[in-house]
Amino acid sequence: MRDPGSCGPTISSFTKPAHPDLLLAAAFVSDAQYNRNIPFKTSPEAVRLYYLYNHWIMRTATYFFIFLDLSLAVFEEPAVYPLPFLVTSVLEVLCLLVFFGRLTHFAKVTHRSVFWKDTKNICIMIAILLSLTDLAIYGVLRIYDVRSIRWSRIVRPIFLINFAESRQIRRAFRSIRNTLPEITYVFLLFMFSLLMFSLMALKLFGERNLQTAEGLPYFRNYLEIVFDLYVLVTTANSPDVMMPAFDFSSWYALFFIAFVIVNTYIFMSLFLAVVYNNYKKHLKNEIRELAYMKRRKMLEAFNLLKEEEGAQFVVREARWKQLVKLVAPDISSSHRELLLRISDDEQKGFVDKKSFVQLADLLNIQVVTLKIHSHPLGQWVPRVYASGVSRFLRSMVRHRGFVWTYDVIILINAIFIALDEESPYISYAEWVFLALYIIEILLKVYTYEPRAFFGKNQFWNWFDTLIIFAALTATILNTTLKSTVKYNSQQILDIVFILRVLRLIRIVDSIQRFRVIMNTLINIVPTMLTFGGLTLVVYCVFAIVGMELFHGKIQFFPANSNAPHALECGNPALKDSLFARAKYCKNNFNNFASSFIVLMELTVVNQWHVFANGFANVTVQPAKLYFIAFHIIMVIIIVNIFVSFILEAFFVEYSLEKSEVETAIERKIQELGVGVQEDELRDEQLLDNMEGAEHDLEGEGGMKAQPKGLVFKIASKRYRTVDALLQRMFEAEIPLEDEGPSLEETPNLSPVPSAQAAERPV
Amino acid sequence: MRDPGSCGPTISSFTKPAHPDLLLAAAFVSDAQYNRNIPFKTSPEAVRLYYLYNHWIMRTATYFFIFLDLSLAVFEEPAVYPLPFLVTSVLEVLCLLVFFGRLTHFAKVTHRSVFWKDTKNICIMIAILLSLTDLAIYGVLRIYDVRSIRWSRIVRPIFLINFAESRQIRRAFRSIRNTLPEITYVFLLFMFSLLMFSLMALKLFGERNLQTAEGLPYFRNYLEIVFDLYVLVTTANSPDVMMPAFDFSSWYALFFIAFVIVNTYIFMSLFLAVVYNNYKKHLKNEIRELAYMKRRKMLEAFNLLKEEEGAQFVVREARWKQLVKLVAPDISSSHRELLLRISDDEQKGFVDKKSFVQLADLLNIQVVTLKIHSHPLGQWVPRVYASGVSRFLRSMVRHRGFVWTYDVIILINAIFIALDEESPYISYAEWVFLALYIIEILLKVYTYEPRAFFGKNQFWNWFDTLIIFAALTATILNTTLKSTVKYNSQQILDIVFILRVLRLIRIVDSIQRFRVIMNTLINIVPTMLTFGGLTLVVYCVFAIVGMELFHGKIQFFPANSNAPHALECGNPALKDSLFARAKYCKNNFNNFASSFIVLMELTVVNQWHVFANGFANVTVQPAKLYFIAFHIIMVIIIVNIFVSFILEAFFVEYSLEKSEVETAIERKIQELGVGVQEDELRDEQLLDNMEGAEHDLEGEGGMKAQPKGLVFKIASKRYRTVDALLQRMFEAEIPLEDEGPSLEETPNLSPVPSAQAAERPV
Repeated sequence: MRDPGSCGPTISSFTKPAHPDLLLAAAFVSDAQYNRNIPFKTSPEAVRLYYLYNHWIMRTATYFFIFLDLSLAVFEEPAVYPLPFLVTSVLEVLCLLVFFGRLTHFAKVTHRSVFWKDTKNICIMIAILLSLTDLAIYGVLRIYDVRSIRWSRIVRPIFLINFAESRQIRRAFRSIRNTLPEITYVFLLFMFSLLMFSLMALKLFGERNLQTAEGLPYFRNYLEIVFDLYVLVTTANSPDVMMPAFDFSSWYALFFIAFVIVNTYIFMSLFLAVVYNNYKKHLKNEIRELAYMKRRKMLEAFNLLKEEEGAQFVVREARWKQLVKLVAPDISSSHRELLLRISDDEQKGFVDKKSFVQLADLLNIQVVTLKIHSHPLGQWVPRVYASGVSRFLRSMVRHRGFVWTYDVIILINAIFIALDEESPYISYAEWVFLALYIIEILLKVYTYEPRAFFGKNQFWNWFDTLIIFAALTATILNTTLKSTVKYNSQQILDIVFILRVLRLIRIVDSIQRFRVIMNTLINIVPTMLTFGGLTLVVYCVFAIVGMELFHGKIQFFPANSNAPHALECGNPALKDSLFARAKYCKNNFNNFASSFIVLMELTVVNQWHVFANGFANVTVQPAKLYFIAFHIIMVIIIVNIFVSFILEAFFVEYSLEKSEVETAIERKIQELGVGVQEDELRDEQLLDNMEGAEHDLEGEGGMKAQPKGLVFKIASKRYRTVDALLQRMFEAEIPLEDEGPSLEETPNLSPVPSAQAAERPV
Repeated sequence: MRDPGSCGPTISSFTKPAHPDLLLAAAFVSDAQYNRNIPFKTSPEAVRLYYLYNHWIMRTATYFFIFLDLSLAVFEEPAVYPLPFLVTSVLEVLCLLVFFGRLTHFAKVTHRSVFWKDTKNICIMIAILLSLTDLAIYGVLRIYDVRSIRWSRIVRPIFLINFAESRQIRRAFRSIRNTLPEITYVFLLFMFSLLMFSLMALKLFGERNLQTAEGLPYFRNYLEIVFDLYVLVTTANSPDVMMPAFDFSSWYALFFIAFVIVNTYIFMSLFLAVVYNNYKKHLKNEIRELAYMKRRKMLEAFNLLKEEEGAQFVVREARWKQLVKLVAPDISSSHRELLLRISDDEQKGFVDKKSFVQLADLLNIQVVTLKIHSHPLGQWVPRVYASGVSRFLRSMVRHRGFVWTYDVIILINAIFIALDEESPYISYAEWVFLALYIIEILLKVYTYEPRAFFGKNQFWNWFDTLIIFAALTATILNTTLKSTVKYNSQQILDIVFILRVLRLIRIVDSIQRFRVIMNTLINIVPTMLTFGGLTLVVYCVFAIVGMELFHGKIQFFPANSNAPHALECGNPALKDSLFARAKYCKNNFNNFASSFIVLMELTVVNQWHVFANGFANVTVQPAKLYFIAFHIIMVIIIVNIFVSFILEAFFVEYSLEKSEVETAIERKIQELGVGVQEDELRDEQLLDNMEGAEHDLEGEGGMKAQPKGLVFKIASKRYRTVDALLQRMFEAEIPLEDEGPSLEETPNLSPVPSAQAAERPV
């Protein structure tokens, strides 16, 4: 969940003494850049503590312990890998201590009044208390051999939601909460329609003495009809639920057609519409709020650093550079120079307020500094590298035909993979293909400059190389094992298979239209992680409840087992049930991992009624409510929000031009003549460009000098933070000049007391 | 498909001699009002023919014959209700003759060059020719007892698509065609992903010798894996397809989880996104085009009727009134007066160009004229009606408690319906409830003015009354039958059951939030009919192909049949198949009706692979392609377009204010003091208002006089035409002043040669 590369001001940066004001301003700018909204105290000690609080090691550690706490369920009874109770309880206490420490740290950073008003902190404290109490009670009862329930495990996801780092997940939860009132009305109307249709079904079919395909009575009991028709809405029992009535008279099909049109098509679309509409609306509000906060924080920083210059307040170049060095210590000095050129457009030696405010956005744009080096071989053995053969080789590799040749090779490889593995010729062929791929990589490295080839943003080059070398290693390992100990490791073979097939993805990159779609997909992956977190929370809660309800009721026996009731999953109540007949015995709640898989299958929806009926048979009928609740929460709400998100992200990708700030930076890069057009960036041409300027200057000494020998490019196709994508979504609707509602309206979120914020200069 | 109430200038309106220019102008205005885009000739005879062409009888007849032609499949071999070949072929020839006649009529109305350039007309002609040829060949072969295929039946939906009246369906098809290129790329990428995963599955599971729950080999054959995983994308075989691998090792579940996330969640959402994005984009273009055409036609009409008045051209009041009378003969003179007041704002005796152009939109707004009558009983027996008891009764009925009482009665009724029918007390109770409902209606009619109570827009009053009287009639009929001939008609009982349950819907109307959602749903019903048409076309084609492929291969036998292979649907190839075991025998392609039901079940998706496997078993394996093709066309494209439409319509309903023109008309109504606020329109208050002005003036004589005793209200919650809703969707983005691209750009659509259109006055 950590934003990649968002290390912010490093701990090392305040080992050299920096002015407290500068440190404070850097904290504001860094918060603005990463959209952190922690109202920290502004005293120098508090700022230092705040830096520590945001340090990536601290944050990673917090996440580590959150996930450790969540994964304890794997080791506790009922366990996938059992550990003694003492070990798990010590680990849990350790986690809780870390959480408490983190909270204490936070309390020291922020104002007391703010801390105690924040429900997040209260939630965490209550969760820690509850967990400790439960642990103590359970431990004591265990000593006296009384079996009790570890009910506090259900509160563990609270830590994932409520620690300040999980902003995205919290926002998604808020979005769901805001959608609830409206969705409730649609849901009630949908339930009304369901109950009405069930009543009709009872009247129409109840007295016909029909039987289902399993020979059970058909549509006799009102509650069962409601459940069956609810399942039909999810389409999971279509057309089975209709067949007895349809066999009786063809006209009855009309009833089911009407039902499906009204409930499955219209109501389910309506759910999506309501969720999507609210998601868009609330997200827009939140993002607007975030944008205002960002601007306000930048103004705070400006006020700390401003000096008078004529009629206006400005930040002088030297201070500005110190600030940027503090905020982003890892960007190159040429990149910093570029940012200064953009902020101080007319080279007046200072940055005015308007340009200063944009700094947070400028820092968020990933500008890639491409240093034009000549090829190392060209330096070491210039004669050989510049020879005719070498030149021919390089021009050949750069030719479009080279890519095509390898696409053809990949296709042939695909056919070989599909063929039988047993034939020795084919397993030899695999070595040939491996060799060909390695030759390809070597040729490319020979032709292109290695540092450019393995640049930060050369995703496909990295992908290729890693896959090939992993495949090579695994294949060699497997062959060695086979020839020495005559043992064919299944795991290694599986990995080799997967790697070999993954290599085929490369072909997608050769076709322009596919690349566009793939880029869109890759772009939205980070934000999809939010939904991963959301899903994790819901799964955890349901898995823990499910284990308490259904643990041990259904057992899995291997195919050749002769245990009693092996065919009925060890439970005679499942005799003749669809669950046992479909051999679903391994889908049970006997441990955390299988619970997750069952919940995944329930999310996919199909056959969920078989699960519901099966688990209701081995416990009580109301157990079906558990499955209905999961369907409503997971499928009707969360999956719809996921779909809404994909729709929105896709539309933004399709319709939005590059954002305003990015355009400004690009214009500047073009103006300075150091840019490379995005679309020119097919490797060949880029490298051709580089060779055109084949002299390495390393010209970073003179700061003001035109940074020759460098080219910049905006990696605009990747977003540094999730928020950046979201902000891009609604950017067009937030005017750049608008400074948002006054601070008084959002007092608990403002970084400093509002009185101080009011005295802004003009 | 006929727009309700769009009768246009009636045939009677040109029995009185009208000036040819006026008639032509009226044709233009009428075309603009209903968004017809037929470039008719402007000679007086052609205009008369054009009026006839647009007459509702002609259009209804065309639709009748189109549906007759389509429904012939029900009577032709393989028939639901067999008719001799002679009868069906005569009917078909009759239909084709009517189509040819309609086409000839159209040819006379329009310019020759336009007619032959229009692919619609060519399509119809080719379809007629093909049908006749096929019919002749089939007839001749039949005489010599050679069985051949009636392949031309597949072209019949062309008539539904291509006749000029089916604008909506054609637009939907155009939208699909425009979406195709983009969706193809996503589809190819999706196929690539599917093939890759299949290859991995083959490598991972192919050599494990696993078996499915049915004991068949698991993931052995590449093509079968591709099919199984395609089915998994639709979720129809989840989790069955995973269970053998999962039972073998829990880790293999990860493969399926990855597959489902990538293909089901991401790619399927991407399909929706692409379809939705394109749907919106293309629809917007089409609607903008329509809006331009409308304005152009209004300008044509204006140019025909204009007279000079000072510095500008105007249409004088008398001509304007004649025109409106011709275009909309069925609106009341007071309504016409209201329109004039809006068009001639300052009562100058003429309508200027800008106001004139708005006429088409004004006519499309449904203004309901509510005449304030006193209650007829108040006129006939004023003493009794004004007495204390009567007044008390009426105030009681108007009280909110009256509605609540009846809501409670309906709820109690629902419980009684759910209870056992056999007990005599409960069947007596049904009579009590019927009596109560009838008393309710009588009381309401007693209290409110009957003509207002059964007004055009009082949907729920009509609904109530019709349901109650139908239920009353059916119940009496059933009781009579039961007591006289001791025969309990199943059909009548079923209808009574359904009616009794439908009555319960009334309760929804009592809750404000539900009413809003219901109104939204009712509003989009007309446009959903377009999707009905689209579905009909796709179903017809697939049903006809399906009947040729699978006819007679699978038979249905009643439960107690002892025919050979009754359990295997009459086909030994289905022995032990899931299809036979699930008792799906009645789902076959043996006639048009069952084919439709099978296709409906395939649209719902669940278990479609069982159908595909079943029908492939009784024919050949490639038969699965038929089912895959249906899934791609129906589910991936059409259902997604349907969902897109619901989303868009819902957003418009939620976000859009009343449109500009409607606001103008409302302002005028308010200004004239004859308005009733929409939100005041709860029956009680409306009727209270009316009683406040309890004097019937019928004051329509003096045209200029304030039409007292009348109140108008805009029935803005219902749209007269489908296009009106669509135009509302994108209205905000079309500027009112924009006259669109010049006529030269769309020459084949312009109603008159462009030279004539160029000489517009300022």
